[in-house]
Amino acid sequence: MSFLRDIKLLLGNESVITGYQMQKFLIDWRKRYKGSALAVVLPRTSNDIAALVNLCIFYNVPIVPQGGNTGLCGGAIPDNSGNAIVLSTIKMNSIINIDEINNSITVEAGCVLKKVQDAALDCNKIFPLSLASEGSCTIGGNLATNAGGTQVLRYGNIRDLTLGIEFVNAEGTIVNALRCLRKDNSGYSLRDLYIGSEGTLGIITAATLKLFPKPLGKKVFLVSVYSLEQAVSLFSYSRSFFCSKITAFELMSGLCIELVQKLINLPKNFINKAPWYLLIEISHDNNEHEIIDSISSFLEKSIEKRLILDAIVSNSSKQNEEMWLLRESIPIAERELGKAIKHDISVPISNISSFVEQTNNLVQAVFPGVKHIIFGHIGDGNLHYNIAKASWQSEYQLLSLQNDIYDLVHKMVADFGGSISAEHGIGVLKVGELTKYKSIAELSMMRLIKRAIDPNNIMNPGKILDV
Amino acid sequence: MSFLRDIKLLLGNESVITGYQMQKFLIDWRKRYKGSALAVVLPRTSNDIAALVNLCIFYNVPIVPQGGNTGLCGGAIPDNSGNAIVLSTIKMNSIINIDEINNSITVEAGCVLKKVQDAALDCNKIFPLSLASEGSCTIGGNLATNAGGTQVLRYGNIRDLTLGIEFVNAEGTIVNALRCLRKDNSGYSLRDLYIGSEGTLGIITAATLKLFPKPLGKKVFLVSVYSLEQAVSLFSYSRSFFCSKITAFELMSGLCIELVQKLINLPKNFINKAPWYLLIEISHDNNEHEIIDSISSFLEKSIEKRLILDAIVSNSSKQNEEMWLLRESIPIAERELGKAIKHDISVPISNISSFVEQTNNLVQAVFPGVKHIIFGHIGDGNLHYNIAKASWQSEYQLLSLQNDIYDLVHKMVADFGGSISAEHGIGVLKVGELTKYKSIAELSMMRLIKRAIDPNNIMNPGKILDV
Repeated sequence: MSFLRDIKLLLGNESVITGYQMQKFLIDWRKRYKGSALAVVLPRTSNDIAALVNLCIFYNVPIVPQGGNTGLCGGAIPDNSGNAIVLSTIKMNSIINIDEINNSITVEAGCVLKKVQDAALDCNKIFPLSLASEGSCTIGGNLATNAGGTQVLRYGNIRDLTLGIEFVNAEGTIVNALRCLRKDNSGYSLRDLYIGSEGTLGIITAATLKLFPKPLGKKVFLVSVYSLEQAVSLFSYSRSFFCSKITAFELMSGLCIELVQKLINLPKNFINKAPWYLLIEISHDNNEHEIIDSISSFLEKSIEKRLILDAIVSNSSKQNEEMWLLRESIPIAERELGKAIKHDISVPISNISSFVEQTNNLVQAVFPGVKHIIFGHIGDGNLHYNIAKASWQSEYQLLSLQNDIYDLVHKMVADFGGSISAEHGIGVLKVGELTKYKSIAELSMMRLIKRAIDPNNIMNPGKILDV
Repeated sequence: MSFLRDIKLLLGNESVITGYQMQKFLIDWRKRYKGSALAVVLPRTSNDIAALVNLCIFYNVPIVPQGGNTGLCGGAIPDNSGNAIVLSTIKMNSIINIDEINNSITVEAGCVLKKVQDAALDCNKIFPLSLASEGSCTIGGNLATNAGGTQVLRYGNIRDLTLGIEFVNAEGTIVNALRCLRKDNSGYSLRDLYIGSEGTLGIITAATLKLFPKPLGKKVFLVSVYSLEQAVSLFSYSRSFFCSKITAFELMSGLCIELVQKLINLPKNFINKAPWYLLIEISHDNNEHEIIDSISSFLEKSIEKRLILDAIVSNSSKQNEEMWLLRESIPIAERELGKAIKHDISVPISNISSFVEQTNNLVQAVFPGVKHIIFGHIGDGNLHYNIAKASWQSEYQLLSLQNDIYDLVHKMVADFGGSISAEHGIGVLKVGELTKYKSIAELSMMRLIKRAIDPNNIMNPGKILDV
């Protein structure tokens, strides 16, 4: 086939994978999405990608960009037609430059997040984006889905952490907007249009990211609370007490902790069974005894104000890690209950408590006995609101209800002023849902933009929008 | 004329200004841009604006949105054709809602920045956007130009401070994306496309903005340094010393201070004549003596490291204000030297020193004797690099060199990886310059977007892009 021959001529045989060796690129890590492709192409440079896009325009071949293949909505997996190529950025994994004075780092799109974090630490700074898949997800994928994670409360999503990007647009032109500038008001922000566009407007090839001073120390503590209302009040109180020192405020339901303790040992003196737990992380520049005093004083006052049931404070960085492990083990621990129906949603923080109460009640009324696995980032109003099968149900029975459960939960999310995709994106999973909950005006403007920028619809077609 | 009759029918006579009373809307505050218009229209609601846009589409009348009319690039002033209307948002100045738990405030576009800051303070929080015109500029204008100001170092531009916006698009549809969400990855970020688009894609009508905890205290100190290289090194050192506590790091040249002291009294014990001064602000949650100790220790070490010449530390909030007054008086004080040729530029922080040295030399070689008025936000790499007339020149002689001086300075900015508009936007002033320094690919994509979203070219035509 002349298309494949032309790619090989362009990029070399070793950059083109076909046949059975494509498999790992054609299925996502949760094995929820499987597709096929003409080839998987592994470009080494932005020039390679520009040439490839030109070729794809000529042959009218769609391109599905893929980073670490850690997405949760199928955005990096091709459809079943076998007409597309997968463009994997795994060979573009260099750190291009660190500018310590400018507090910025420039990296290729295929660079794994952990590598960027480590490079920052090597010069005593931090790149604060942090999420469960950080050991394998790539910066390009993080940008394509505007990744969030656990430090958003203090540092923002990757959108807020990005100074500039380079991308290849749908015409096959390299657009170098790799600016290291903190202020640049010279026209429309193409950077922000591409961030979160999930490869549907072109391929992000490199980025310049912000680095931050490394806090002197971190302290983690766990508290238990009766109710989500208490959890939200505690969040407000802790913001006024610790101000910007709070870098995480994570929620875990009692059920999450029950499941996790089947996998790992709970910290010593772990609090008695409670309906809800919070992991709170303070990043500070104080000395050790000052911050311990400050946390003790905060906890005493919180008990006086009847905001918490109990608390334990980490006394070492090792114990910090143990506490984080609790939170990070939830996605694996919940598999114990079988495949769950997952919702990655956000609501205004002030609505969290009533949203969960009313949605739980409604879910139980319509689907009695199913289990609620609820955890997430209170400080961002972002909940992972997952539903596992009732004890009398089979996994199949639950999964066959997926669309009905989506309908119910997403309708409630909309009623409470929320978003049906807080941090995972739309991919293919939520294309239909988006048309229900995004306004007609917004969808129509998104389509105008997609058609103007990618008139041939070769950039990740069928993702986000069914154009 | 039937267009005017129809507007009056739609919005009421009292919402339409014609004739001589339009004057103050047709000229900017610096009296650099003057235009004419069919009418100035003062809508009260988003519905008014949507109806107005529909009418303007029907009659093919361009719309020039205007907030507080404090812009520096002529973006809110119509051209001389007299074909357009000015849409002033001054009657849309309500605070719609404050959600203290969600740390957000929702306001109409015509709300003056100071009013938003005050509303935040009333609930013991802050809205950190801060700039010289805060007493008269509006949130809508701030968003349209992605306003920066003095607190960007810690809190970011208004883009970073915005959760959601409502706008009326160029089809006359209200797009309500007034989300109060900190995480929302559901498709292209129309919010970020409209922020910084200077009214060329539609009219921003309301916004939901982030509020932050109010720091317990602020301390300002002034230091003098020999060179910009020292200033940048001091910035790096202070970031590692104070981490996120630094909320401003402002540069003033010796000449700026000389000019300012003709207007106001300098603080007592003000440092001797030096080539450069820095105003550093620390926002902290410590008690008074702790922060004084910390600043003293920082200054001692800075002297040891030969990073500073001298320093004075404010000892009261009154003295904080006096120190800020120095910095804020520069734009007025520089008028002493006549109308200047102003550059609002940014470069990577690591390039500030060599950029200024080389550009100063080049400017003196080509335009001998002109004066350099340099101040700005070191922490953002954002300099106000202004050129005033030589002692032997008339104001007219200098202004006639404007294009040559722009060429020289902007060429240097481009060579140092910078932006020709850091925080003021493009307006009409820099439309030509933008075509020289933005890549063809970026300009072409900006035009694609403008044409797709505003096919009739009725939204602030001629601003940013000459479509």
